[in-house]
Amino acid sequence: MPSQIAIESLSPDELVAEHASLSARYADLTAKNLTLDLTRGKPSPEQLDLANGLLTLPGEDFRDGTGLDTRNYGGLDGLPELRAIFSELLNIPVGNLLAGNNASLEIMHDLVVFALLHGTPDSERPWSAEPVVKFLAPSPGYDRHFAITESFGIEMIPVPLNDDGPDMDVVRELVANDAAIKGIWTVPTYANPTGAVYSEEITRALVSMPTAAPDFRIIWDNAYAVHALVEQGAPALDVLGLAAEAGNPNRPLALASTSKITFAGAGVSFFGASSENIAWYQKHYGIKSIGPDKVNQLRHLRFFGDADGVRAHMAKHREILAPKFALVQEILTERLDGTGVATWTRPEGGYFVSLDVVPGTARRVVQLAREAGISLTAAGCAFPYGTDPEDANIRLAPSFPSLDDVRTSMDGVATCVLLAATEARLAR
Amino acid sequence: MPSQIAIESLSPDELVAEHASLSARYADLTAKNLTLDLTRGKPSPEQLDLANGLLTLPGEDFRDGTGLDTRNYGGLDGLPELRAIFSELLNIPVGNLLAGNNASLEIMHDLVVFALLHGTPDSERPWSAEPVVKFLAPSPGYDRHFAITESFGIEMIPVPLNDDGPDMDVVRELVANDAAIKGIWTVPTYANPTGAVYSEEITRALVSMPTAAPDFRIIWDNAYAVHALVEQGAPALDVLGLAAEAGNPNRPLALASTSKITFAGAGVSFFGASSENIAWYQKHYGIKSIGPDKVNQLRHLRFFGDADGVRAHMAKHREILAPKFALVQEILTERLDGTGVATWTRPEGGYFVSLDVVPGTARRVVQLAREAGISLTAAGCAFPYGTDPEDANIRLAPSFPSLDDVRTSMDGVATCVLLAATEARLAR
Repeated sequence: MPSQIAIESLSPDELVAEHASLSARYADLTAKNLTLDLTRGKPSPEQLDLANGLLTLPGEDFRDGTGLDTRNYGGLDGLPELRAIFSELLNIPVGNLLAGNNASLEIMHDLVVFALLHGTPDSERPWSAEPVVKFLAPSPGYDRHFAITESFGIEMIPVPLNDDGPDMDVVRELVANDAAIKGIWTVPTYANPTGAVYSEEITRALVSMPTAAPDFRIIWDNAYAVHALVEQGAPALDVLGLAAEAGNPNRPLALASTSKITFAGAGVSFFGASSENIAWYQKHYGIKSIGPDKVNQLRHLRFFGDADGVRAHMAKHREILAPKFALVQEILTERLDGTGVATWTRPEGGYFVSLDVVPGTARRVVQLAREAGISLTAAGCAFPYGTDPEDANIRLAPSFPSLDDVRTSMDGVATCVLLAATEARLAR
Repeated sequence: MPSQIAIESLSPDELVAEHASLSARYADLTAKNLTLDLTRGKPSPEQLDLANGLLTLPGEDFRDGTGLDTRNYGGLDGLPELRAIFSELLNIPVGNLLAGNNASLEIMHDLVVFALLHGTPDSERPWSAEPVVKFLAPSPGYDRHFAITESFGIEMIPVPLNDDGPDMDVVRELVANDAAIKGIWTVPTYANPTGAVYSEEITRALVSMPTAAPDFRIIWDNAYAVHALVEQGAPALDVLGLAAEAGNPNRPLALASTSKITFAGAGVSFFGASSENIAWYQKHYGIKSIGPDKVNQLRHLRFFGDADGVRAHMAKHREILAPKFALVQEILTERLDGTGVATWTRPEGGYFVSLDVVPGTARRVVQLAREAGISLTAAGCAFPYGTDPEDANIRLAPSFPSLDDVRTSMDGVATCVLLAATEARLAR
């Protein structure tokens, strides 16, 4: 077994032997004609099965607890009873929380569009009338966030992301001095892809720091708020309350969804913000919609019953996901620990493991894996503009494959990481 | 009965007597303490009941005919089998037709947003970079269309709407000479609110007329494509084919939805356009969504089965709606025919009757009705900026109330129309 050897410590001859051994192992891997996919944070069929009760809901009774006929038009805010459940889970007052259609990504996109075309309640003019608009992008981060800002020509500034949130020294300095910086992307709980959990201290700093832009916004994408891999998950911080306390009530724009609770393509999204922001959003959202799909919201309400219903449901997800994440750790440790060519995160929730390989080899690792039938997200995907300046980061998404496939693919990835590392040293 | 008297022919004494008689009748009306609503084109509960089969669908089998797991992410185009059904009904090739979430209004909004922020495939620059952008607004028309363009500061130019479509002499002249005119709102079948049906001749003229703007677009909102009140409904014209034949394949952007087929708040929307337009839309839509709610699309697929399933379903809607529309005609004729104070449309489909009263009295009629407990849409709502230059037009929406309520409210409206007309003549 070629594991546990510090590649850097090998003599030139040992390095050549190690490279040959890894090449042979890689040849065996490609001979298997695998078709494995670790690209996206998709729930597995087994996880989706947990919510199959939705497939015959809401049943004959189409009215919510207020007597509303969910089949007809209207109800821009979403069903109050479903909002109440997620109000408890997300720690957002129900009056400040809307329920929407199947994608919080759509809401985030709309928030940026409305700010661009109309300006926020605190904007002097629409963002599109500014000469330059910038966003902070804690990295590695979520590629679909970065794609939204990139698509509108909003300039992204990468900021280092630590285990407890972004590097606040860097953030403070930037936002205090540049009024063009209008916002920051965040995934505060079990961040995509590192698993970082924003501490209360960092959260307080974010909502209270002085910003040159009066209309600075925190996109608080709490996509994994209840998605712990451990029994005692991270608490949802009262981000709206903390912001109001700091005198910046309009700063956070909070998002969540059931995409990774029930059905990835057919869930319910949530948007939480100050009353002024909610009124602003509804003013513009009301131009594009007569209301979200309330029957689907009723379906979810009936399925969960209450917040404890969601918690019990997430415990079942944990039973399926935790062994996969444990296996990733086991194989990475077995194959790469001590080799000096890789570090990786040990998330307590969420959908990803962030793997850092020898700088300059991430793209090569992804290429090697692809040629062996293992699809990984493109190297650099977790950085603004898809460019990792170090070419070191790889996002691993072990949720979709079966346990056996996680084992095979992670072992394969480890081989690719080691092979690319020896190639790189040989080329020096 | 005060009906059938030509108000204009009354002597001064007769006019005073008629006004007194109508005032007494109006007092009787207000004494009833009615709460009736003719404001919006909402399906009635009885109509919504027709689709209650959806409430327990799709059932345990969550895969479409291609084997796709509809519960998970992906599938930006929507389910092929459902698109095939509406391809047949809308006369749009399935490869050019997408299925979306619950609101075609959202797609229309996005189309305008994408044109503003990115420009269309035929635009020299994003529309937001133009000094002025204008849209033609055939009027009376759909208030939510006009609200989209108004919200973005797009200048609307009213154009007369005839029974077979917009006045093409006016349209041709305008679009040929003003490159700022980037589009036209249309509801080609049973238009909201007049019931106009665009003829093939007018449709050919729209897709082939020379336009100063190279990126001129027809928003072809075929919201009532299959919503006939008569047995032989208007055919769906092959608008994409006609446009391609005329050398302007990218001009039409076609929309439809099941909002008034199944559930108003929980249906499926459709977008049809040239391949270039579809690719353009998907490029930008793919930034804001990982895909529409495919489980709801599967639900609809299972419910309808095929295009004939939709046709049979619409026949049931017709059985409920046609008597209501017939009653509106009966009462308006009985009370207002020969009075010379009102004209109205006799639609063969759709959700509205457009009533024209004595110029200068529409707002007064709506006010009188409201004070008698009958809610009508605000006068002028069917015109750009909510302003009817004649103050003559009122949109009647008889779908939601019961037959009895339609009778009561239409009789009340007729009283208000006559009372306002006598008031107006007395004030001269």
